[in-house]
Amino acid sequence: SIPPGVLPLRCQPPVWGRATRQPPGFPLTPCRAFSNNKIQVELDQSSGVATMKFKSPPVNSLSLDFLTEFCISLEKLENDRDCRGVIFTSAVPRIFSSGLDIMEMCGKSTEHYAEFWRAVQEMWLRLYGSNMVTVAAVNGSSPAGGCLIALTCDYRIMVENPKFSIGLNEAQLGIVAPFWFKDTFVNTVGHRVAERSLQLGSLHPAPEAHKLGLVDELVPEEKLQEKAAAVMAQWLALPDHARQLTKSMMRKAVLDRLVAHREEDIQNFISFISKESIQKSLRMYMEMLKKKKS
Amino acid sequence: SIPPGVLPLRCQPPVWGRATRQPPGFPLTPCRAFSNNKIQVELDQSSGVATMKFKSPPVNSLSLDFLTEFCISLEKLENDRDCRGVIFTSAVPRIFSSGLDIMEMCGKSTEHYAEFWRAVQEMWLRLYGSNMVTVAAVNGSSPAGGCLIALTCDYRIMVENPKFSIGLNEAQLGIVAPFWFKDTFVNTVGHRVAERSLQLGSLHPAPEAHKLGLVDELVPEEKLQEKAAAVMAQWLALPDHARQLTKSMMRKAVLDRLVAHREEDIQNFISFISKESIQKSLRMYMEMLKKKKS
Amino acid sequence: SIPPGVLPLRCQPPVWGRATRQPPGFPLTPCRAFSNNKIQVELDQSSGVATMKFKSPPVNSLSLDFLTEFCISLEKLENDRDCRGVIFTSAVPRIFSSGLDIMEMCGKSTEHYAEFWRAVQEMWLRLYGSNMVTVAAVNGSSPAGGCLIALTCDYRIMVENPKFSIGLNEAQLGIVAPFWFKDTFVNTVGHRVAERSLQLGSLHPAPEAHKLGLVDELVPEEKLQEKAAAVMAQWLALPDHARQLTKSMMRKAVLDRLVAHREEDIQNFISFISKESIQKSLRMYMEMLKKKKS
Repeated sequence: SIPPGVLPLRCQPPVWGRATRQPPGFPLTPCRAFSNNKIQVELDQSSGVATMKFKSPPVNSLSLDFLTEFCISLEKLENDRDCRGVIFTSAVPRIFSSGLDIMEMCGKSTEHYAEFWRAVQEMWLRLYGSNMVTVAAVNGSSPAGGCLIALTCDYRIMVENPKFSIGLNEAQLGIVAPFWFKDTFVNTVGHRVAERSLQLGSLHPAPEAHKLGLVDELVPEEKLQEKAAAVMAQWLALPDHARQLTKSMMRKAVLDRLVAHREEDIQNFISFISKESIQKSLRMYMEMLKKKKS
Repeated sequence: SIPPGVLPLRCQPPVWGRATRQPPGFPLTPCRAFSNNKIQVELDQSSGVATMKFKSPPVNSLSLDFLTEFCISLEKLENDRDCRGVIFTSAVPRIFSSGLDIMEMCGKSTEHYAEFWRAVQEMWLRLYGSNMVTVAAVNGSSPAGGCLIALTCDYRIMVENPKFSIGLNEAQLGIVAPFWFKDTFVNTVGHRVAERSLQLGSLHPAPEAHKLGLVDELVPEEKLQEKAAAVMAQWLALPDHARQLTKSMMRKAVLDRLVAHREEDIQNFISFISKESIQKSLRMYMEMLKKKKS
Repeated sequence: SIPPGVLPLRCQPPVWGRATRQPPGFPLTPCRAFSNNKIQVELDQSSGVATMKFKSPPVNSLSLDFLTEFCISLEKLENDRDCRGVIFTSAVPRIFSSGLDIMEMCGKSTEHYAEFWRAVQEMWLRLYGSNMVTVAAVNGSSPAGGCLIALTCDYRIMVENPKFSIGLNEAQLGIVAPFWFKDTFVNTVGHRVAERSLQLGSLHPAPEAHKLGLVDELVPEEKLQEKAAAVMAQWLALPDHARQLTKSMMRKAVLDRLVAHREEDIQNFISFISKESIQKSLRMYMEMLKKKKS
């Protein structure tokens, strides 16, 4: 139903920067079952439920390419009348998503930082404001931006393995989660838990995350997809229109805040990330990760 | 102390629409013990505690007449210096209140919808902003507007029977709770529980409602009135003035929001409820209720 | 590093009223270890952690002198590069702090009330906005303003003795906690718990306070200092800059609100406290305390 090369946007703002620069003849794969490089999408037409599987080894990091694919895929589902809900999960063992790709924030141009940050904003705006039911099936660790994706869904189910952890751990890296990460966190776990967890940059093992309300439910790994489908069916039993209006009522204030301060937020990100001290600590962090690997 | 036919209003806004149109000679029953059609009011002068018993079978639905009586009764108590607290409970077995009367929202004129919605607003404005201590003794199920009455009190005690449930289940009927229902809900259970419960239109059995913080306490049915009296005594042990100022400080932001957007909220209600799709789904719901009865 | 007689202020507003009137030659004790009349300060330079011990028997009440010392001491530590965190505790057995000194609010001049209230505001503004990690080691009861100090820290550890209680019990005295006490309370325990606790003027025994989230942790009295040091070490493991920016993001809205309404808040306090009815009830309360003592 979507003509190739045209990306219909659900609503005027937010317009996702990159999409408008897509060359007109860009061949989009057919909507019903498509897979690009980093995300695999399947739509079960009988249930109206799509699954978006993150498949960007080694750790599903949120690179500009990943975010681009994410937004295009989400947009296509959003505009597909046969799709009413999406389950997000990982095809990579033991990791849901490691969060924003540090490579995109290190040693790049101001223009690149702006483009990257706009894509992060766009991902959140589209997902937090989605009309579809969104369920995170968290089958691995989920730090920083990975945690944000989960928080931005309507419901979070996590594998009960205490080796898997989740949290906005930006402070550990010497950086600060932006205000809309914080707003999403506060809306989920309340002000006090957010204040403590964000300042400590805590990564909460699954059982603790559940206790704090960061995830709604824990299940054994082999039950995860079944449980996600059952939760989805429960949410889809409601009439879409009333559910969507209710969701919008709950989330509008926080969404509007980023829409109103979007360019300012990009400038803040650029000036923060461009600091030599921040660049240095990110480089050190990457060195550490490389040593860990080898 | 209140001359017949005059309804002294505690404060300028909110002025309750209907009251001003009350004919001057309308004979109000004496304040100390009065019963109209749908609500039975008793004031124990020694304790300063009134009880308002909902007595509108079969399900204490909040019709325009019920809301009118509710506001008049509450206003009389509010202006009675001998009354410092009110306990709300039901005289109908197994139901506290079934919420807004669907008959008032189905196949009526725009003027009627406006009058009805203004009365719903008025009930909430007066109750949420009451200077008296308000305790809900929830002795039966309490969906939608029934739940709102409970949430709007200072304290909620519910019979521990798991067959009794409570919640803002509007979404189940294809309609949306207005923003001030939502604000009251969020102030009680926090953002996350509200987001999930409102989108699913959940009716929570008493034990679950207690766990979520939707009610403060569970008691066996035979202990309910005794417990309500004990809680009331605890709250009345505080000096009225400091307690009232504190209550106002906690609730002012949310009250002010409706006062500022009252006419807009009425227009929203009218345009929403007048939609043929909504009318159709309300008619179907009423059919279902009728079949259930017979 | 701080020249005697000069009190460098970390940021322009808030300017603490009294400090500017300090005589130029006022001899400040050296920063590293100083003790005035009412508060004993020790800085462990190896860990970068200071301890502020309240030592103003019989009950560490927050007099104008106490608040003055508190602010000067905090300011000195804030400007000392060797100090990264402060632990607040009491040197008086069984009491952390009894809160605002009623003597300062009874039978004094308007000017005195203004000066006193400005000092209370200043204490809160400096502590809630502190760049240092602040840990309350609550080793005794902590009503009203004593509770506020604990709430204003980053983390609260309380001795598990159920005879020690904590809460904003202003309503019990017929007075009302100002909006920024309330904001701090809501940010800690959420709206519902705050609404109920503030209206009832509840003093919560340690175990209940822990259950409500008013304190983060309970320990046996003999483990308190050790635990406070361990918590402090955990918070100091984070890079200061990211932690400080995160803290500021979480607290800015509430801090800004007092800064914007500071003079208005002082006027409110003066007109409230000057009422004969309030003066009378404070006098009665003091009589009661005197009788209790003898």
